[in-house]
Amino acid sequence: MVSRLPDFARRLLEGKNFAFLATIFPDGSPQVTPLWVDTDGNYVLVNTAIGRVKQRNVSRDARVTVAIADQNNPYSYVMIRGRVVEQITGPVAEHHIDKLAKKYTGVDKFTQQPGIQRVILKIEAERIAG
Amino acid sequence: MVSRLPDFARRLLEGKNFAFLATIFPDGSPQVTPLWVDTDGNYVLVNTAIGRVKQRNVSRDARVTVAIADQNNPYSYVMIRGRVVEQITGPVAEHHIDKLAKKYTGVDKFTQQPGIQRVILKIEAERIAG
Repeated sequence: MVSRLPDFARRLLEGKNFAFLATIFPDGSPQVTPLWVDTDGNYVLVNTAIGRVKQRNVSRDARVTVAIADQNNPYSYVMIRGRVVEQITGPVAEHHIDKLAKKYTGVDKFTQQPGIQRVILKIEAERIAG
Repeated sequence: MVSRLPDFARRLLEGKNFAFLATIFPDGSPQVTPLWVDTDGNYVLVNTAIGRVKQRNVSRDARVTVAIADQNNPYSYVMIRGRVVEQITGPVAEHHIDKLAKKYTGVDKFTQQPGIQRVILKIEAERIAG
């Protein structure tokens, strides 16, 4: 386990860069999707919705890899191999998607479709390369 | 199998956009790395080197997913789930990396480290989303 993310990884996670999250389908094949990303300095934090493919995948197999490239220089990137150690729902997750919307789009509040329940996937880094 | 890639996927593959290729490690966990990408209209073509992790991974388990986002609009993206149906080495692969270098960096010839053997991973699309 990586207790604190190294500076170069933190900078990429804090920037307005997209993460590409790889998960495992039930048949063992890989899935990858772009999404917003964030960090508290120790964990990689992404925000999805309950029932989405990636959320179902990590609920079955918590192992993931996240790749993040600098939006302004795609040759600067980091790959973080780790595991979803916690899924956080409720007000914390709703607040978190607003924070991400602010970072990526500048709006104060994320436009949520009705009936969607947000969830933070808290990813513990095990290996970092890049 | 998708016999011809749809136009929106082809445009993203032909553009100066990075692909994020997800493969499977020997322990069944997912890997994802950014790399240059290309298409002949029917297959997704990426170029790596013999012995790299992704090449070893797809030699064991050919199932992959590739995500490509528009460099100028990351909300426009495609995810292509498929399989590496062929690995092409030799002059064709060396020529192909020069073609990719031209597209992405403008140079005519890719600067190859000595001792590296290039390989094209030819990916057949099975499902396309985005």
